[in-house]
Amino acid sequence: MEKVVLAYSGGLDTSVILKWLLEKGYEVIAYIGDVGQAEDFEAAKAKALKIGASEVHIEDLKEEFVRDYIFPMIRGGAIYEGRYLLGTSLARPVIAKAHVEVARRVGATIVSHGATGKGNDQVRFELGYYALMPEVKVLAPWKMEEFLSQFKGRTDLLDYCDKYGIEVEATRSKPYSMDANLMHISYEAGVLEDPAARPPVGMYKMTVSPQEAPDKTTSLKISFDKGTPVRVENLADGTVKSEPLEMFNYLNKIAGENGVGRIDVVENRYVGIKSRGCYETPAGTVLWKAHQDLETISMDREVFRMKEQMQPRLAELIYNGYWFSPEMDYLLNSVDKCQEVVTGNVYLDLYKGNVIVVGREAENEAYDANLASMDIEGGYNQKDAEGFIRINAVRLRSSINPWRARFGG
Amino acid sequence: MEKVVLAYSGGLDTSVILKWLLEKGYEVIAYIGDVGQAEDFEAAKAKALKIGASEVHIEDLKEEFVRDYIFPMIRGGAIYEGRYLLGTSLARPVIAKAHVEVARRVGATIVSHGATGKGNDQVRFELGYYALMPEVKVLAPWKMEEFLSQFKGRTDLLDYCDKYGIEVEATRSKPYSMDANLMHISYEAGVLEDPAARPPVGMYKMTVSPQEAPDKTTSLKISFDKGTPVRVENLADGTVKSEPLEMFNYLNKIAGENGVGRIDVVENRYVGIKSRGCYETPAGTVLWKAHQDLETISMDREVFRMKEQMQPRLAELIYNGYWFSPEMDYLLNSVDKCQEVVTGNVYLDLYKGNVIVVGREAENEAYDANLASMDIEGGYNQKDAEGFIRINAVRLRSSINPWRARFGG
Amino acid sequence: MEKVVLAYSGGLDTSVILKWLLEKGYEVIAYIGDVGQAEDFEAAKAKALKIGASEVHIEDLKEEFVRDYIFPMIRGGAIYEGRYLLGTSLARPVIAKAHVEVARRVGATIVSHGATGKGNDQVRFELGYYALMPEVKVLAPWKMEEFLSQFKGRTDLLDYCDKYGIEVEATRSKPYSMDANLMHISYEAGVLEDPAARPPVGMYKMTVSPQEAPDKTTSLKISFDKGTPVRVENLADGTVKSEPLEMFNYLNKIAGENGVGRIDVVENRYVGIKSRGCYETPAGTVLWKAHQDLETISMDREVFRMKEQMQPRLAELIYNGYWFSPEMDYLLNSVDKCQEVVTGNVYLDLYKGNVIVVGREAENEAYDANLASMDIEGGYNQKDAEGFIRINAVRLRSSINPWRARFGG
Amino acid sequence: MEKVVLAYSGGLDTSVILKWLLEKGYEVIAYIGDVGQAEDFEAAKAKALKIGASEVHIEDLKEEFVRDYIFPMIRGGAIYEGRYLLGTSLARPVIAKAHVEVARRVGATIVSHGATGKGNDQVRFELGYYALMPEVKVLAPWKMEEFLSQFKGRTDLLDYCDKYGIEVEATRSKPYSMDANLMHISYEAGVLEDPAARPPVGMYKMTVSPQEAPDKTTSLKISFDKGTPVRVENLADGTVKSEPLEMFNYLNKIAGENGVGRIDVVENRYVGIKSRGCYETPAGTVLWKAHQDLETISMDREVFRMKEQMQPRLAELIYNGYWFSPEMDYLLNSVDKCQEVVTGNVYLDLYKGNVIVVGREAENEAYDANLASMDIEGGYNQKDAEGFIRINAVRLRSSINPWRARFGG
Repeated sequence: MEKVVLAYSGGLDTSVILKWLLEKGYEVIAYIGDVGQAEDFEAAKAKALKIGASEVHIEDLKEEFVRDYIFPMIRGGAIYEGRYLLGTSLARPVIAKAHVEVARRVGATIVSHGATGKGNDQVRFELGYYALMPEVKVLAPWKMEEFLSQFKGRTDLLDYCDKYGIEVEATRSKPYSMDANLMHISYEAGVLEDPAARPPVGMYKMTVSPQEAPDKTTSLKISFDKGTPVRVENLADGTVKSEPLEMFNYLNKIAGENGVGRIDVVENRYVGIKSRGCYETPAGTVLWKAHQDLETISMDREVFRMKEQMQPRLAELIYNGYWFSPEMDYLLNSVDKCQEVVTGNVYLDLYKGNVIVVGREAENEAYDANLASMDIEGGYNQKDAEGFIRINAVRLRSSINPWRARFGG
Repeated sequence: MEKVVLAYSGGLDTSVILKWLLEKGYEVIAYIGDVGQAEDFEAAKAKALKIGASEVHIEDLKEEFVRDYIFPMIRGGAIYEGRYLLGTSLARPVIAKAHVEVARRVGATIVSHGATGKGNDQVRFELGYYALMPEVKVLAPWKMEEFLSQFKGRTDLLDYCDKYGIEVEATRSKPYSMDANLMHISYEAGVLEDPAARPPVGMYKMTVSPQEAPDKTTSLKISFDKGTPVRVENLADGTVKSEPLEMFNYLNKIAGENGVGRIDVVENRYVGIKSRGCYETPAGTVLWKAHQDLETISMDREVFRMKEQMQPRLAELIYNGYWFSPEMDYLLNSVDKCQEVVTGNVYLDLYKGNVIVVGREAENEAYDANLASMDIEGGYNQKDAEGFIRINAVRLRSSINPWRARFGG
Repeated sequence: MEKVVLAYSGGLDTSVILKWLLEKGYEVIAYIGDVGQAEDFEAAKAKALKIGASEVHIEDLKEEFVRDYIFPMIRGGAIYEGRYLLGTSLARPVIAKAHVEVARRVGATIVSHGATGKGNDQVRFELGYYALMPEVKVLAPWKMEEFLSQFKGRTDLLDYCDKYGIEVEATRSKPYSMDANLMHISYEAGVLEDPAARPPVGMYKMTVSPQEAPDKTTSLKISFDKGTPVRVENLADGTVKSEPLEMFNYLNKIAGENGVGRIDVVENRYVGIKSRGCYETPAGTVLWKAHQDLETISMDREVFRMKEQMQPRLAELIYNGYWFSPEMDYLLNSVDKCQEVVTGNVYLDLYKGNVIVVGREAENEAYDANLASMDIEGGYNQKDAEGFIRINAVRLRSSINPWRARFGG
Repeated sequence: MEKVVLAYSGGLDTSVILKWLLEKGYEVIAYIGDVGQAEDFEAAKAKALKIGASEVHIEDLKEEFVRDYIFPMIRGGAIYEGRYLLGTSLARPVIAKAHVEVARRVGATIVSHGATGKGNDQVRFELGYYALMPEVKVLAPWKMEEFLSQFKGRTDLLDYCDKYGIEVEATRSKPYSMDANLMHISYEAGVLEDPAARPPVGMYKMTVSPQEAPDKTTSLKISFDKGTPVRVENLADGTVKSEPLEMFNYLNKIAGENGVGRIDVVENRYVGIKSRGCYETPAGTVLWKAHQDLETISMDREVFRMKEQMQPRLAELIYNGYWFSPEMDYLLNSVDKCQEVVTGNVYLDLYKGNVIVVGREAENEAYDANLASMDIEGGYNQKDAEGFIRINAVRLRSSINPWRARFGG
């Protein structure tokens, strides 16, 4: 009997898939990756065993997720299409990596997941599998003729559960779908498919709205070492956190309470579809903004330019599922290189949805107070600027400059 | 007697320069570019004439500034170092262009300005002059040995005014310097030179703070035609504005009242100095965000990628003063090309510093609701995704993928 | 009976496919795109009709190929992975476009081709079909289970021809495969699959080897108008050509005679495979080099930089089959914009494989002889360079410059 | 008496400068950087001492030049404006670095050089000085009012030498100027300032012309380790070289004998001037082409893409004189990262100006013969390509694709 390791969530789709794979004659090992989603993992385990899984592996990936995926993304300043902080995208590789590890541990070369054929997650999972286990065989029922013809909609899934006594909490209709981990919750599909419609009130779970947030400013000091967040201090009550996971969870809490981190966007999926998504990323938003601020004070201008040009590409790679690619390895090397100087503190206020940077201090001397001063010369000769400008103008004075023909008299 | 056209503000520095140029034997024509700064232009004119200017030209550049500089920047999505919306940078070329026009009108080939040798504005002005009037001679007293040795600090300027009966409102010390136009006010120098120090309370003029803003949500509908803002509607009271300048001023008012548009950054000047600047750009912030949102729904993904990669370069050119350059002409052509599809409406809420996008609708069909739907096939065959992923994985399965050596078992 | 329009070459594969489609019950219309390959089109037509095609459409695409595909690529300076001039890639979209036009003309929505599933051409053809005829159905037998299981190798194809009396010139084994059009001939597969093995002597058809070429220098003058080649003059015998196709054919002849235009590379296919290819592109090589030379004298430096950065992306799009994409349209607009100034003449020598540029003259004044002169000032003040350098050095003098720690004493 | 360290060549300009500095009251230490130019260094030393230098330091920089400047450029594939291999640009930083080292050794903080104010070399030298010795003072007589007014042309220099008994070989007129080092010789100015004029016969020194080269093919095998050339074998006579400098000199010899490495271009100087330059870079040309060839077989496609996009920027930095900049350090880190896999051999023929690559073999398995094969499946499922293409076509089928409006019927 061939072994399949199935990424199992305890929800409707993967419960049906688990049973369906058993019906097809596979031995099914359920694998649950804990990336901080608020689930009852023991209940999910019990359910999987009850349906017929031969084993259930619950892997705690939270620390690794924060340290090896979220923090590199912060260092890299990756942001997709200018707004999305990649919460789901970042969780996929760590889940895929542990999936493959479980497969190896149990001696399986077949893996399965419940992601659909229209989404990004199938790509992220499967590219991860292929990269780390080239010999892998992937069973993705939502792309299999047989499964698709058997389950044409939500009703078929529920009927199937009824038939086999699989308990599900799911209702016959769902207003939208969610995906949660410790970095964010994403919302898409259903009523959100109309891009002009406001998201339903009460949808968001990790954050209150700016309007609901308390009329009170929370001041923080966030410290980075070579681009990595290493310390968060609440300047009001003196709370200090410095362990990656603990720090991240703490930031999620206070940023969420202050209404920070929601976005509502239309994004471009890798499979060529435009899709509307709503996201809430409280801690990620605060860290991203704090890091951005420290970077401009501590990094050389031209290195910053190069990094800035690389950022959209880095975000695209993460979004499209290429974490375990040679080009990602190449870019992460560059990211780490340029972060060597990004050490210091950022001061900011959280207030009703706003992250307001109010000060920063870098460990190095990239910011030179004397040079910056309008009152002190600081080794800078103002007369040099004349030549600087005149030489830069040589090209512009040429008759081929099209603006001359337009406005040059 | 040689004629000099001096960019005159009515303030301390340019009043001293005006007198000083007269002392040097020049005929001085004062030129005041009105880009929406809140100044009493008639008082400035009277003052210039009193000091000794032979003519004073007040040029109303507001409409041109909005239409030919701010709106192209919005279409281009230009944002400097991820945060600065370029309010000062955009005003400089329109001021320089009119400066040259005045010079031509009065038959002068010498121009003068009061920008210092450490800043960006000298570069922006002078590159503009050289591009549009290659034969120009620039007198920039703050870079001239003779002037610098005569005026070593603020006190020397004030003493000079006393001596010549030039009335100035300026005090002996200034906490920071400001530059205002209809797009923004910038604050720098003085107490702001300590990058870790909070900006002084009461500094900002165009916006209230998020904390001071009313606890009330203001909903807007903003319409774009080929990337250009063409209509703003206040959904609460039905106010509609559609003339560029009027629309922009209206947005400044309501965004400012809602605490929108402040930033506090350390930025990289073109002359190699890191400098701390605080900016408030109420209307610009709202338009920039609305435009960004409409763009992702209406534009092809790969065109968007290319535009995204070009944006930092566009912003750098504007910041560094290269508006009237061949490369700017080249980039603006690309910007206009990609904006042909950016037509539609964006719905957003202003609330205590937040600009919250809540919906959008594009005129074209780049967003295909059927394709996006998780319930409808919409011409998309989910099984195709299998081959898509497998072919994209061919490279990743290679033994040269460094992640395999690391995690590949 | 459903109509299929088959891209037909007269060769083994497409003859088999034609018959096979008939067997499957389709009416087959054969379509032959003439892009300058040295074929007997009338013989191919007769053969197709004999096998059973209901109609044969021979489309002369040569002029269009040169004018609308090759010349834009020259203007764009597109070169794939630094060496390949894209001869096959450029022919594919013009062939696909005419394929779709034939389909429309005959009222068919099914198209078929004989490209394999490992190559680039399938992608280029099919992306073209889908872009220009979204409702198209593609029959690509080399990717169809049924066809693949019937024809496992060359022998099966030949046996099938024997069985149905299809005349083929093909032998049981082929040392390598070729693809020809008026721009180039490509060679790959077979003995070329060993990337360390020299290409067989006698393989190339359009060019002699440098060693075989005559020991004689041929001097040409090539003229461009806005980046488009408009005139070729042989300075030895006074031959002049100025019609696009005639000019291109003439250049093929003399460049081929002089051993110009061969390359031997390993390239990256879009489907993730590295492949060895040998190409001969005589006219294309000469035009590419001449255009490159004229561009640096006539174009602004910074526009050139931007174009240079875009070139690899342009080449990648062409190579990967995205001619009819929004991003190609976007890039071609930029290409045309920057070519507005590229007008003038280039002088070059062909000699035994070498294209030696020996002089050039641009119509505009981007090259300013006085400014360039080491003997004349030309409006350039050498003293300005001091300030230029000193301001550019401000950043480099900072203690964060890593080279200071290394070598700074 | 203040000490000045003068970069001395023994030629006309720097001999005059040496004397002139002595006249101005400086103690002058002459410094000669040996980067392989064919000079009689002992004669130059004697001359400097005779003119009045207090010390002469001859620094042998050849090995360092090849290993730390030329080889990194080869690894980086840097080529300026598509053609120039940066021979002069690469020598400048190593000369500047040793210049600063001599200054430190003798306790000087003033350095001087003879480069003019219109050229690139002044920038490269001075940026190097400022980066490595921020406190340096630069005396560049060709940018000093006093020197410029005293020496208006070549005649003034020669008269000055006559007056002070400085022996010079220089004639009253020079047809062009040259700069030589072990990587190349550059020719510019004088008769070359007419960009349409052929370079004079007999100008080039390191190479014969293709026409003069022997009618004989020379076959080489060149080996790289992580992108660095480590071995050259002449396959005809079995000569093997593996020490960097010896290998480079050997390649210069045989490539020069075979007419390899000449170019004639108009280039864009950093100071905004277009200039015509002729260069001969025999060994560099061979290594650059060999390295390029090995790279495409051994490197992942997407890493290659990223490197390709970085190459023009790398070349620009080298050309403009930013070797000792933070951004160069950042880019070189990326270069080294991507070169980890570039190990293997390239086979090529030199023949009358041509460098003909005829085969290559990489140590790794980036090139997978089974995958590449048209006869073997090699783990590749051709049917996957259907889905790959169809998903990539989703975007192209949209009604916003501009080609549909044009050609889509």
